[in-house]
Amino acid sequence: MRAAVAAGRGVEILDVPAPVPGAGQVLAVPRAAGICGSDLHLVDAYDAAGPGVPPIVLGHEFCAEVAEVGPGSVLRPGTRVVSVPYAMGPAAPELLGLSPTLPGAFAERMVLDERALLPVPDHMGDEVAALTEPLAVGVHAVRAGRPDAGTVHLVVGCGPIGLAVLATLKAEGRGPVVACDFSPARRALAERLGADVVVDPAASSPYATFADLGVTEEPPSPLLDDAVARPGQVVAFECVGVPGVLQQLIDGLPRHSRVVVVGACVRPDTVVPASAIAKELDLSFVFAYRPAEFAQALSMLANGQVPGEALITGRVGLDAVPEAFAWLRQPEEHVKVMVTP
Amino acid sequence: MRAAVAAGRGVEILDVPAPVPGAGQVLAVPRAAGICGSDLHLVDAYDAAGPGVPPIVLGHEFCAEVAEVGPGSVLRPGTRVVSVPYAMGPAAPELLGLSPTLPGAFAERMVLDERALLPVPDHMGDEVAALTEPLAVGVHAVRAGRPDAGTVHLVVGCGPIGLAVLATLKAEGRGPVVACDFSPARRALAERLGADVVVDPAASSPYATFADLGVTEEPPSPLLDDAVARPGQVVAFECVGVPGVLQQLIDGLPRHSRVVVVGACVRPDTVVPASAIAKELDLSFVFAYRPAEFAQALSMLANGQVPGEALITGRVGLDAVPEAFAWLRQPEEHVKVMVTP
Repeated sequence: MRAAVAAGRGVEILDVPAPVPGAGQVLAVPRAAGICGSDLHLVDAYDAAGPGVPPIVLGHEFCAEVAEVGPGSVLRPGTRVVSVPYAMGPAAPELLGLSPTLPGAFAERMVLDERALLPVPDHMGDEVAALTEPLAVGVHAVRAGRPDAGTVHLVVGCGPIGLAVLATLKAEGRGPVVACDFSPARRALAERLGADVVVDPAASSPYATFADLGVTEEPPSPLLDDAVARPGQVVAFECVGVPGVLQQLIDGLPRHSRVVVVGACVRPDTVVPASAIAKELDLSFVFAYRPAEFAQALSMLANGQVPGEALITGRVGLDAVPEAFAWLRQPEEHVKVMVTP
Repeated sequence: MRAAVAAGRGVEILDVPAPVPGAGQVLAVPRAAGICGSDLHLVDAYDAAGPGVPPIVLGHEFCAEVAEVGPGSVLRPGTRVVSVPYAMGPAAPELLGLSPTLPGAFAERMVLDERALLPVPDHMGDEVAALTEPLAVGVHAVRAGRPDAGTVHLVVGCGPIGLAVLATLKAEGRGPVVACDFSPARRALAERLGADVVVDPAASSPYATFADLGVTEEPPSPLLDDAVARPGQVVAFECVGVPGVLQQLIDGLPRHSRVVVVGACVRPDTVVPASAIAKELDLSFVFAYRPAEFAQALSMLANGQVPGEALITGRVGLDAVPEAFAWLRQPEEHVKVMVTP
């Protein structure tokens, strides 16, 4: 079968063996699959390693249609499904679309773990269903931030993950969200998704918006009685993932803020711990999601709480996947590009 | 009066005006006062700034005897007290012994805010009472770590703050504590204070002790159901405050550990955020304490739950304070040096 593959030479369209379902697995036909920033990171890492690396069929954000089920399955062929991108292998869980073991959705066929499948409601489009995975990252990040009724939220970076955080906050009816991004297109999307304040950090400081939203500056930390401290008054979501952003947050946020670090900065970053200590900041580094959060993300898309269509800025067939990867190196232009194999 | 002063030329013994109590303040005679790492940082910063900086009378960890009270005070002269090192000034709270406004305890006289005073029980020595302040830092750090009944604790660095954390954990009857320090003298003190495992990191890894203490390695993060995740299984306390230690913790700790950062690293430090993301670590940066934690620290010393005497490794009079500051540049030798003005 044809598939978009990382094998140490960028992204290539190759003929690879079609996967064969094992016990507890189904064979499925991918219907739509999003390209993720992790795919770009993975391709970069593979290119750095060079040829000889075991090939990976990419695509871990997907909606697929069940084609063949094993004996005793309650699923019918034709059922559309989404799934967390992993399956229990013989010894340990195996990642799908992110490891050589389980091929991903940028292909003509894939196998899925039957126990992980969530059926997609009939009224829901394939592409919106394929947004379940990145939206689940936002659900998980929001839960980690432990916001309360009085929290003011700051979303730094309005790429797919920042917008997933924003969409989750608004779907859950949470209090004001300040969203910031250098890109006008992404700021427009943040507005479309319901951000209460949208800031261009090149023009003004997102922190300058806090006073109008009722954020009060606490007295200096050593003097704080518990009656004065307001932990979680501001919860910031770092969704950029480039060096320097963390220290900007440390310098800009008020005392006792929480920072949820979602942007996966793979390069060394520099912070001055004493400046985070002076403000008693909390940094929670988060990754992926739990199965229940994945299911919540599907519901939020299915019931229209999150306008998924708005996030899709490009569509390509399988052959154009290498070209689409090049587009995504220009994040100004795109949020989520969907592949329809 | 004579006092140990930072004025941009190291620590000097100078004649300075004796402070005069205002409304709500008492005049007190310092009886014992500890030298803190913050004092060394402050002197370094002042030396870097050079002469011309407003002089600061140092000493914010103290026990003092009330000498004169104002009309209407319920306190009697002769009462020994401890206090959080600040007082409400006319406009805002002012730091004591750490700012030019309120002189500290390395002096013949000081003024204290009457509302902040905690009387010292008669059976308690001056020097042990003066440990209330650094011990309160440990109480606050432990509370920030939110340990539960199943938590394994790691204390990295057994200087005064690391030992305060350790002492608090043991006084509160909490589960196993692994303490590590390169210094044999400090490791011996950690043992004396009840550490369950004491590690010389030059000889072995503190993380290697976890398996024997029942810490289990979680499966890779994206596969975690909430039934499998064990947030707070390990809570680590970073009490060193030099660059590099944070990343060592990120690399060494198991998934979903919490790190309470108490060591005030004033220099830039480098971390790789993606490695903290992969483990979903929480970093809580903490500073000082709340008044209630200060009171808890006094109680723990008063009722013998914390053997304060063990922490005192040196004693000097006021004239020898500059010399004692030099000793503390060699942390191998000393934990807490007490000044008896």
